[in-house]
Amino acid sequence: MAMLPEVKSHYGKLKLYIDGEWVDSKSTDVRPTTNPATGQEIATYPQATQEEARAAVEAAQRGFLAWREVALRERGRLLFDMRHKFEENFDVLCRVLTQDHGRTIGESQGSVRRVIENVESACSAVYQMPKLNEHVDWLARGIDEYMIYEPEGVFLIITPGNIPMHAWSSFVPYALAAGCSVVVSPSRQDPVAADYICRMTEGLGLPKGVVNLVHGGREINKFILSQPEVRGVGLIGSSAVSLELFQVCAQYGKKSSLNGNGKNAVVVMPDADLDQTVDFLLRGCFGMGGQRCLGSDTVIVVGDIYEEFKAKLVAAAKGMKLGYGLDPSTDLGPMCAPSGKAKVVDWVDRALKEGAKMVLDGRGVKVPGYEGGYFLGPIILEGIDGSMPTSHEESFGPVAALMRMGSLEEAIAYINADTTNGHSASIMTASGKSARKFTKEVEVGNVGVNVAIPQPYAFFPLGSKKMSFLGAAKSRLASMRLFLDEKTVTSRWV
Amino acid sequence: MAMLPEVKSHYGKLKLYIDGEWVDSKSTDVRPTTNPATGQEIATYPQATQEEARAAVEAAQRGFLAWREVALRERGRLLFDMRHKFEENFDVLCRVLTQDHGRTIGESQGSVRRVIENVESACSAVYQMPKLNEHVDWLARGIDEYMIYEPEGVFLIITPGNIPMHAWSSFVPYALAAGCSVVVSPSRQDPVAADYICRMTEGLGLPKGVVNLVHGGREINKFILSQPEVRGVGLIGSSAVSLELFQVCAQYGKKSSLNGNGKNAVVVMPDADLDQTVDFLLRGCFGMGGQRCLGSDTVIVVGDIYEEFKAKLVAAAKGMKLGYGLDPSTDLGPMCAPSGKAKVVDWVDRALKEGAKMVLDGRGVKVPGYEGGYFLGPIILEGIDGSMPTSHEESFGPVAALMRMGSLEEAIAYINADTTNGHSASIMTASGKSARKFTKEVEVGNVGVNVAIPQPYAFFPLGSKKMSFLGAAKSRLASMRLFLDEKTVTSRWV
Amino acid sequence: MAMLPEVKSHYGKLKLYIDGEWVDSKSTDVRPTTNPATGQEIATYPQATQEEARAAVEAAQRGFLAWREVALRERGRLLFDMRHKFEENFDVLCRVLTQDHGRTIGESQGSVRRVIENVESACSAVYQMPKLNEHVDWLARGIDEYMIYEPEGVFLIITPGNIPMHAWSSFVPYALAAGCSVVVSPSRQDPVAADYICRMTEGLGLPKGVVNLVHGGREINKFILSQPEVRGVGLIGSSAVSLELFQVCAQYGKKSSLNGNGKNAVVVMPDADLDQTVDFLLRGCFGMGGQRCLGSDTVIVVGDIYEEFKAKLVAAAKGMKLGYGLDPSTDLGPMCAPSGKAKVVDWVDRALKEGAKMVLDGRGVKVPGYEGGYFLGPIILEGIDGSMPTSHEESFGPVAALMRMGSLEEAIAYINADTTNGHSASIMTASGKSARKFTKEVEVGNVGVNVAIPQPYAFFPLGSKKMSFLGAAKSRLASMRLFLDEKTVTSRWV
Amino acid sequence: MAMLPEVKSHYGKLKLYIDGEWVDSKSTDVRPTTNPATGQEIATYPQATQEEARAAVEAAQRGFLAWREVALRERGRLLFDMRHKFEENFDVLCRVLTQDHGRTIGESQGSVRRVIENVESACSAVYQMPKLNEHVDWLARGIDEYMIYEPEGVFLIITPGNIPMHAWSSFVPYALAAGCSVVVSPSRQDPVAADYICRMTEGLGLPKGVVNLVHGGREINKFILSQPEVRGVGLIGSSAVSLELFQVCAQYGKKSSLNGNGKNAVVVMPDADLDQTVDFLLRGCFGMGGQRCLGSDTVIVVGDIYEEFKAKLVAAAKGMKLGYGLDPSTDLGPMCAPSGKAKVVDWVDRALKEGAKMVLDGRGVKVPGYEGGYFLGPIILEGIDGSMPTSHEESFGPVAALMRMGSLEEAIAYINADTTNGHSASIMTASGKSARKFTKEVEVGNVGVNVAIPQPYAFFPLGSKKMSFLGAAKSRLASMRLFLDEKTVTSRWV
Repeated sequence: MAMLPEVKSHYGKLKLYIDGEWVDSKSTDVRPTTNPATGQEIATYPQATQEEARAAVEAAQRGFLAWREVALRERGRLLFDMRHKFEENFDVLCRVLTQDHGRTIGESQGSVRRVIENVESACSAVYQMPKLNEHVDWLARGIDEYMIYEPEGVFLIITPGNIPMHAWSSFVPYALAAGCSVVVSPSRQDPVAADYICRMTEGLGLPKGVVNLVHGGREINKFILSQPEVRGVGLIGSSAVSLELFQVCAQYGKKSSLNGNGKNAVVVMPDADLDQTVDFLLRGCFGMGGQRCLGSDTVIVVGDIYEEFKAKLVAAAKGMKLGYGLDPSTDLGPMCAPSGKAKVVDWVDRALKEGAKMVLDGRGVKVPGYEGGYFLGPIILEGIDGSMPTSHEESFGPVAALMRMGSLEEAIAYINADTTNGHSASIMTASGKSARKFTKEVEVGNVGVNVAIPQPYAFFPLGSKKMSFLGAAKSRLASMRLFLDEKTVTSRWV
Repeated sequence: MAMLPEVKSHYGKLKLYIDGEWVDSKSTDVRPTTNPATGQEIATYPQATQEEARAAVEAAQRGFLAWREVALRERGRLLFDMRHKFEENFDVLCRVLTQDHGRTIGESQGSVRRVIENVESACSAVYQMPKLNEHVDWLARGIDEYMIYEPEGVFLIITPGNIPMHAWSSFVPYALAAGCSVVVSPSRQDPVAADYICRMTEGLGLPKGVVNLVHGGREINKFILSQPEVRGVGLIGSSAVSLELFQVCAQYGKKSSLNGNGKNAVVVMPDADLDQTVDFLLRGCFGMGGQRCLGSDTVIVVGDIYEEFKAKLVAAAKGMKLGYGLDPSTDLGPMCAPSGKAKVVDWVDRALKEGAKMVLDGRGVKVPGYEGGYFLGPIILEGIDGSMPTSHEESFGPVAALMRMGSLEEAIAYINADTTNGHSASIMTASGKSARKFTKEVEVGNVGVNVAIPQPYAFFPLGSKKMSFLGAAKSRLASMRLFLDEKTVTSRWV
Repeated sequence: MAMLPEVKSHYGKLKLYIDGEWVDSKSTDVRPTTNPATGQEIATYPQATQEEARAAVEAAQRGFLAWREVALRERGRLLFDMRHKFEENFDVLCRVLTQDHGRTIGESQGSVRRVIENVESACSAVYQMPKLNEHVDWLARGIDEYMIYEPEGVFLIITPGNIPMHAWSSFVPYALAAGCSVVVSPSRQDPVAADYICRMTEGLGLPKGVVNLVHGGREINKFILSQPEVRGVGLIGSSAVSLELFQVCAQYGKKSSLNGNGKNAVVVMPDADLDQTVDFLLRGCFGMGGQRCLGSDTVIVVGDIYEEFKAKLVAAAKGMKLGYGLDPSTDLGPMCAPSGKAKVVDWVDRALKEGAKMVLDGRGVKVPGYEGGYFLGPIILEGIDGSMPTSHEESFGPVAALMRMGSLEEAIAYINADTTNGHSASIMTASGKSARKFTKEVEVGNVGVNVAIPQPYAFFPLGSKKMSFLGAAKSRLASMRLFLDEKTVTSRWV
Repeated sequence: MAMLPEVKSHYGKLKLYIDGEWVDSKSTDVRPTTNPATGQEIATYPQATQEEARAAVEAAQRGFLAWREVALRERGRLLFDMRHKFEENFDVLCRVLTQDHGRTIGESQGSVRRVIENVESACSAVYQMPKLNEHVDWLARGIDEYMIYEPEGVFLIITPGNIPMHAWSSFVPYALAAGCSVVVSPSRQDPVAADYICRMTEGLGLPKGVVNLVHGGREINKFILSQPEVRGVGLIGSSAVSLELFQVCAQYGKKSSLNGNGKNAVVVMPDADLDQTVDFLLRGCFGMGGQRCLGSDTVIVVGDIYEEFKAKLVAAAKGMKLGYGLDPSTDLGPMCAPSGKAKVVDWVDRALKEGAKMVLDGRGVKVPGYEGGYFLGPIILEGIDGSMPTSHEESFGPVAALMRMGSLEEAIAYINADTTNGHSASIMTASGKSARKFTKEVEVGNVGVNVAIPQPYAFFPLGSKKMSFLGAAKSRLASMRLFLDEKTVTSRWV
């Protein structure tokens, strides 16, 4: 297959989207963003001023007041129309995502399909309102009571660099389904993707101000969250930012859904299908350059199969083809940004100093024709143990860190000893008993059995545990409880 | 442990319970009921007249009209009080059940615990009413809508001889939770058990007529069901009666939950834990004299383990101690009635004629001190195949019919070829893959993995398939949809 | 506004849709269907043979076996695509519906919008599957249990002449969402509409045979329902047919959702807003030529306002403009068929004989340019009382039958005295107390407060009571319980 | 009726309850608590040391680890047994509550009944676990997914002086239902009530350490919440404490349900039933000495009925009999504590300075025989307006503050202008339209229509808005989401 075309080679200076208008920022802080496969600029974007952020909040509050008056049946219709708009723009969104973020086109297609499933799930949320609300008549003599969920108001939604579209879809469609409005503040790593997904809400008949987009950063985000009209925040990002925002919420009495870092293990049991496991781990460890919340960090091999498994994994990893993601034959794209690549290299350096052994070193990889790209090849380490600081810290790169253990019990104990990370863990096994023991005992939010990346479907939350999640309600359908608030009504008419 | 005392040695002539009163029937058709371990009479019971049945229906209708006006919070309180009454009478109920039905005291304790769990589940049903009802405001401009579930009215509840209390509890507490009233018509096999469980509804403050008890039979049941006040019927019984009552319902436009026969298979895979399997099958095949809807009829052994498995099963079965159920050392009680015993013997005779081979013959068993009892020892047959009529018909006795097959696929195909029975099927295996294949593909309502009797907990229905279930809603919590009916309300107040 | 164009002036000989193909029927019984505004033929349609019906059932069974293996996430996606196809064809469907059935284009638009809402609701049903299914771990020591809903199989769906598209959408999209397949058998009154809505399922990627269309009638319907592959029937039609099919179901042990006739009252209280009430009643009594299940039959006026109300109603009814529905200025279209018109006229004749007085006589109306059409103008009767047989029988025409009563209690008693009909009833009032009393006490499935036609939204069932509904589960989202069946799984892995 | 007996005249020095043992505190800070009707000491209680608090946390963690392994069916059974224990101790709990807190025996009976309803609701929560958990099979080809709710761990539960038992029951039974353990820290105002309700959890078979009781205060509470084993906090108390604890939670990443102050309005419309309204307001404004979260603070009278209404209210308030709550003829008991009385008097003084007019002054009331009691008679003020600081601050005493307004719109605008309080608001009216407008537009969590105290039933949360609630999940059944956390499991077995 031939290389897919870029949607544009340069997207110009990006605008802010406030009150239903694309606005040219007055900010003097305008930054470039690059195609990570080539290192060349594909757009510039402004850092919004405080005045612009305030204007977005005010627009969002007006948008909320209009939107909550729109009848539920209209709200539903509009979300279904939005779902179709995503389908119509499927290819464009995929190509923009690959160009701006670097992942392969296949990975973009998977990601945008997940986005659409979130929109579908939000459509369904509108139709689930009668079931969410509750009603009871003749509770006491002459007394009826019902409880409805009302929209909260304006929310700040902060999206990360690795999944700019998927994270957007984990909150925004649900906020709309709930009758809320949003100010979206995306990561600086892929502003073009953020710009394109925002466009999917145009032309549907949403009241002005229901959706707003502000390119900002840490200080602007805290400013927005502190505004009295803003009821809370949804974030997919790092644990450090997550805890910082949780404290801002505590200061002002706001709601939150804050999703941070993980450190995810895959346990390979002696009775696992090793070829299938290796196949899964190419995706789990190296896919998307390892820039996945639920990607596989630590691979714990139980029993005698270690050497056999390692050999198979190394051979498969060596066969991955690096390149520009718009080339359909590419298996592994570049890191999203130079800073991201640098962090991975630093993590590997530290791991080696702490005693890890290099099995396959993808650090110095060159990709012909893409010398300016931020590439890293698959990296496989062994000799990891729990006393090494890096063993508790995600590399966020294409790294498989192998460990060898004697039993399932040992593996579970190792995973549960981590007091801060609680995203995911998987087991590869043929045994119903091992699988059940693992799913019951492992203290993470997302458990996989014979799957490498136990990412749940759109109707389930990511559901992480420990410091990987803070706040009132998780993402996706569960975020309806972030965006809605209970009101009970007790009536006597006799 | 010593023999437990009987509650009474003779319970006299049983009465009907109509409109909150125990009524001496005017019927001239008065029959004896015996203790199946001794063959001696323990009570007599009348066959209610049509007038008495009509009086029960009228009382039930008045009871319904009063009960549906009782506020939900009072309804809940009363059901919780009823739950406590069952706990207080736990021992009495268990001993009556053993004396009247024959099962061991341990089996009675299990059964009455299941009864109480149904009452608890019905208590919870009251508290789930707000979630069952639905509500949506501002559906269209100025329009609100809600849907509530209203009680239907009077129901006929027919209970079988094998589980007189458990079947009662699978419908009656839920009917009460829903605000309905009942006329209960129990099996002729254990009227004393039916009498005692009815007493658990006395003294709680239920309006008169909400619960009624009529000892009748097929014709009286059809008469009751045909009455205009009666909204429907709940039955646990045979498929033949089930289909007959389904047609009565069709004639008059009534609702039903009709649970019939089954023919349940247990598939023993080569990787099963054989000792555990044998242990489970003692209960599954022989427990309660095989008089269990979800008991194990056919044991399909896959692969090379047949002879080993058979030897273990025979040895274990031979070790079962027969006796009076009130003796705590008894493993296996008598059949519930002479007619029941005769049917099992007939089934075995026919199976042998069709080509089955006898492996362990419990037909001629004698129990010292209980020569008048209706005992059958464990019976094990082999050489069964699907061409034999008896292979598709439940024996309803302590019979294990062994089959040998080559693969799981073959076992599933055999089970699914049965077009009328759909109660349950189990698999014994260590493999997650075999278990998942079996649970997905097997066409029965209740699937077990490493359990012999996959009887679901009180909040789940028995959930049978094919002709094993007919009607609008299954038993237990699911029967709330039998007893309740939707009403939608659309309001405009602007 | 100008007259809208017809999609075609003649649709030729309609075909059957079997196994994914449009098939020319071999039947010799080919009938014409007409445009009710002109009386001119717009298509012919065959009466399918028994062989063709059997072929449709076999195709549906194959379709079911393929469809149930399609993963849930694909099933959802396909239904969302179908929703978009309906939006794309919105105008065509509306114009076909008006041309074939006769209702005004505005009424068609309302109807097709309701169709789309049902498709949206079915999309949402797919996303609600995890909530419908239940799961509990560690129920007993080492025991887990879950309950899933599995698709039943093939269903016969029978649609009526008055709402050929809306009735289709009340079952078919839900059957698809559940994983079932259908054989649709539409009314003879508007086969073109049935043909067009069937086309909305083409080209989406549904396995062949999942949707089939057979033009048949009573005998063919019973034949289809009796086939062993067919699990049940969904019908919106008459009570007579409903009861007949209920008995076929009882004979073969099948599931059903059978919706029959109604006789709906609107109670106008002295404190009602009379102008608003009259406005509502033009739609409730005369809209769609009175051919509405939830239309208003009897108008009960409470207290002193009778004469004032009658004068307002008559004046407004006289102002309604009759004509061809494709003319946007038309207020009232023709009756759907000559037979329908004849039945209304007969009902009026009988009512007059029984003592009713004619207030406004629309029987002899002439519509210039549409002399061949089956028109009836608004008919208003008074002097109705409950002793007249016609007072309990729906006219299914543009008829308002006025009654005068002294109190709300009297009105409720009158409505509840009807032992067979239970569709809907409305109250017009300013009083919270009157509204609450009415909604609580009136024994119908759909109650309106200050609305004329209390038709619930797509996520609620029509929910009728008494003989107006028979079967296991109501229509729309509630029909998921028709199309699905419970399976419980109990596992032990320790 | 005669005076009811006190359970004891003095309860001695209260103990702590840690790890299943009643422990004599080593604290040197031991304080008296008095009977508010007499001012006499009825018990002393210690201020637990930090070591004792730490011991309680450690016991709770051990208790949690044991409790979460108890099978769900056992957990349910134990909660039903606890419900019965409350019924058995109903009278004792009521009399202790009156003696320790001061409210009338009738008010205690209402309160303890609400407690039992919470326990019933928690019983039901256990039976709702299968519905809370979600499951979907064949989500993608070969992939199944389920989501279960797992218990979080140890929680700190802080109860207030006004509803020591009701607040306990709003969290503790649900924590137990969820599988969590608790350290309860009650208010200093009624430690005897806290001691007695804790005893209801003894002897049921709960693992040691599942329930712990520590008499502490602000600093001990913060210490407990900061401990790593403690997952979060449930509080019913003041907004100041609520915000402070919310910030502790943000520091450590914990969950919370924090319920603070309110300022509740009752709007009396011109078409209200004034006698009924006055009757309701005696309870709403003066009942429990005004020490109710959902009590009525501000009475807004709309239209011309002001003088008539005021006269009726004053006359009725004058008729209230003050006295010791154990005397069944008492209408109004004392304030719970001298500090509470002093705060009310101060609030009234400030209100008068700000311009309020005294209509009925209950400050100087003397109750013969109870000269040492902390009594306040009904206080009625008028001339309140929104510019007065006291108009936005709850008096927490038996005070009705009358306002006069011209329209419902004005009343709603006044209520919604309060940016911090969001507990409740009620309307008294005969109009369906006014009621609907009010329930839709008023921005509080609990709305009443023709009820004075819109306290929802146990299955609904209090559901307050604005700063009256902070945290992840509300109280009662909604608190299951505080105590539980999602885990998703994705499996592939093909």
